[in-house]
Amino acid sequence: MKNITIIGAGLTGTLLGILLGRQGYSVQIYERNKDPRRTFVKHGKSINLTLCKRGVSALEKAGLGDEVQKLWVPVYGRCLHLSESQIEIQPYGNYGEALYSISRQELNTLLLSVAQKTSGVSIEFGLKCVGYDLSRSCISFIDENQKQNERPFTTLIAADGVYSAIRSQMQRNFGFNYSQYYSKHVNKELTIPAKQAKEYKLEKNHLHIWPRNEFMIIAFPNRDGSLTCTLQLPFDGNNVSFRKLNSEPEVLYHFRKLFSDTIPLLPNLVDEFFHNPEIPMMTVRCSPWHIEDKILLIGDAAHGIWPSYGQGANAGFEDCEILCKCMEENPDNLLTSFTEFQEKRLKNLNAIADLSENHFNEIRHLVTDSNFLLRKKIERKMNLLFPSEYFSLYSRVAFTTIPYKQAVELEQIYSRVVDELLNSQEIILDPDSHESEKLIYKTYRRYLR
Amino acid sequence: MKNITIIGAGLTGTLLGILLGRQGYSVQIYERNKDPRRTFVKHGKSINLTLCKRGVSALEKAGLGDEVQKLWVPVYGRCLHLSESQIEIQPYGNYGEALYSISRQELNTLLLSVAQKTSGVSIEFGLKCVGYDLSRSCISFIDENQKQNERPFTTLIAADGVYSAIRSQMQRNFGFNYSQYYSKHVNKELTIPAKQAKEYKLEKNHLHIWPRNEFMIIAFPNRDGSLTCTLQLPFDGNNVSFRKLNSEPEVLYHFRKLFSDTIPLLPNLVDEFFHNPEIPMMTVRCSPWHIEDKILLIGDAAHGIWPSYGQGANAGFEDCEILCKCMEENPDNLLTSFTEFQEKRLKNLNAIADLSENHFNEIRHLVTDSNFLLRKKIERKMNLLFPSEYFSLYSRVAFTTIPYKQAVELEQIYSRVVDELLNSQEIILDPDSHESEKLIYKTYRRYLR
Repeated sequence: MKNITIIGAGLTGTLLGILLGRQGYSVQIYERNKDPRRTFVKHGKSINLTLCKRGVSALEKAGLGDEVQKLWVPVYGRCLHLSESQIEIQPYGNYGEALYSISRQELNTLLLSVAQKTSGVSIEFGLKCVGYDLSRSCISFIDENQKQNERPFTTLIAADGVYSAIRSQMQRNFGFNYSQYYSKHVNKELTIPAKQAKEYKLEKNHLHIWPRNEFMIIAFPNRDGSLTCTLQLPFDGNNVSFRKLNSEPEVLYHFRKLFSDTIPLLPNLVDEFFHNPEIPMMTVRCSPWHIEDKILLIGDAAHGIWPSYGQGANAGFEDCEILCKCMEENPDNLLTSFTEFQEKRLKNLNAIADLSENHFNEIRHLVTDSNFLLRKKIERKMNLLFPSEYFSLYSRVAFTTIPYKQAVELEQIYSRVVDELLNSQEIILDPDSHESEKLIYKTYRRYLR
Repeated sequence: MKNITIIGAGLTGTLLGILLGRQGYSVQIYERNKDPRRTFVKHGKSINLTLCKRGVSALEKAGLGDEVQKLWVPVYGRCLHLSESQIEIQPYGNYGEALYSISRQELNTLLLSVAQKTSGVSIEFGLKCVGYDLSRSCISFIDENQKQNERPFTTLIAADGVYSAIRSQMQRNFGFNYSQYYSKHVNKELTIPAKQAKEYKLEKNHLHIWPRNEFMIIAFPNRDGSLTCTLQLPFDGNNVSFRKLNSEPEVLYHFRKLFSDTIPLLPNLVDEFFHNPEIPMMTVRCSPWHIEDKILLIGDAAHGIWPSYGQGANAGFEDCEILCKCMEENPDNLLTSFTEFQEKRLKNLNAIADLSENHFNEIRHLVTDSNFLLRKKIERKMNLLFPSEYFSLYSRVAFTTIPYKQAVELEQIYSRVVDELLNSQEIILDPDSHESEKLIYKTYRRYLR
């Protein structure tokens, strides 16, 4: 039996374990934390998760389609809280397209249970990987008693996250190109509790966003009626920042100024503000992702991306699906499988990394910009006129499985159509008129075929 | 007395020690290696060094102008060995501009001796820095017996090179942006021994270059009549590469094909090829360079650059000069000094890092390109016509102390002048004619004032 060792029983590592187990591999997973099903896991430590088509497709490949559906809340668009009195709804698409808001921990728990029931897969908890020794084919761990441990491996796949210890060691090798890039903003988890059991204080099936240029709150619905918020502020700086807001009055003063309508929704604001950690966003780019057929990086370990496009976990799941396909197509040839996997994925992950950085820097400002709103309207019309042909950039990323790079490159043509339309008086005056519709149709066709 | 601790007694660390000692600081330098003046140092481990105006200026500030002159061999231009029978001389400038070829070890030895004679400066050898503890203000070392050691510090300046242990630890901090980028080519040292004492086998006062597109040899003259060569080949790849050439017949076969005229010059070719290590080239970009007023990165630790523009050590020396100026202008305010230093240097080092990467990728091909040679000719004429105003990009980098970024940005205008002139029939037919000269004058003046 072919042996695969996976470091990390997070989302990517466990899904990969399940898929490889089903392909007939003998899979050993090592995880630094204790089994989350047997221990209390502290909340407040992660940015909420939305699944999109890419992630769902990979979960379905693992036979988890039905079970995962029970855990999620679909959201069909953004609800922008532009001011206390002004709300704007932006549906994601014309045909009920949805993202799926899901608890990271509940999804992880499901994956762990399924992995442990999958034949050939086993998981050992409480072993923190600190490095590898290629010449002796073994991995070094620190166990829960701070003792050094070693385990042998044949092939190692590192799914140990954006701060990967395996990648950190690979970084010392000649020819390993690497970069890490932090956003100036960091995130903090805040909670909008349920009104009462399963009753939401805000409309359930939307992502709620309070965009305030440099500052933003996003709220994701949970199954129990609560919503988990991410507050984004600069970490440092002379204006409002996590460093500057260091007393209760200051937090309340600035919240009243910036996000007054959220205050009644956040009963534990001050407590959470001072006790939940700041969560940074880091882009990681590196290559090569593998050392021959011995070690492979996957998921966040290979490519950290900012969460602004909601693609982190989805990209990791898509990695699993594509890696397993490469391994299926090249039986008994891991070197070719790993080479093809990197060939297929690296350029796409670099594209979504760039997009996530640009989107994050734009979105906080653009979302409230009238030109941006008109652009969205034109894009929605184009999709209505050419429903099987045209999707907006956001839709291509979130609601198709077109490779990321291609999804981004298509925008070069489409944006020229929209740019031209944005200059039309007819469109500016009434984008919903019949004349506008005809103009959109003709302009689009002039550029595309 | 104000205490400064420096990690690394290489070129940058020792020069900084001398300059700070002269400014009245108490300086403690720690170096991982043994004192090179008391132990045998293995050769073959480094790429040769040329000093240019930037480096010389900093050495003069330390009062070392006369002593360093005794160690160097000036080179006034490139001697291109285009084929066995075709040699082309390219002077660096019209006014005797020179680079200064110098042994890294001899220069280091001089700096160490001067540092130890400088009041307030002391050096401890054989302590390899492995990290720092900011909360306890101490540095961790491994000594020559593999024992852990600690030393206290007030302010720490890390001059511990491109693989800096201090930077490596800083990389784990939130907000530390970092990238490392390797060239596909690596270097290997080869030696052209002296004909007899102090007699050179090749013309002494040039840098000798054998450009062969993907492959290149550069030879630097030493004081003793020998020349030290750097052979540049791809590390890996299906064509000629260090990985592919793994037997004596293969090395000789490809050397005869590529560099036949060097074979009689390199009596120890095969031995050196198989025993000297491959030396990679890595660009390192990072920021911020300092943690408050406690820790600062300098030299290669802050910015690794490929050696293709010959700026590595010169940039490190220029760092020392500029840092000392910042510290002089802000007495008793290290935070402001370090902030200003980064403000002044980071953009310039990013500019020379980009330039060194681009230049490396271009030079191997361009050097033999007729368009490139004509361009050089036009640039030389422009400098003759406007001697106090116009310098080529190479000259601005090597023979002035204009900040790197500005040196690069000026090229945006100048290259348009040259591009236009390259299209002129007159210039193509006879760049040295009186007509051509007039045209160059007029075209230049049309773009500049």
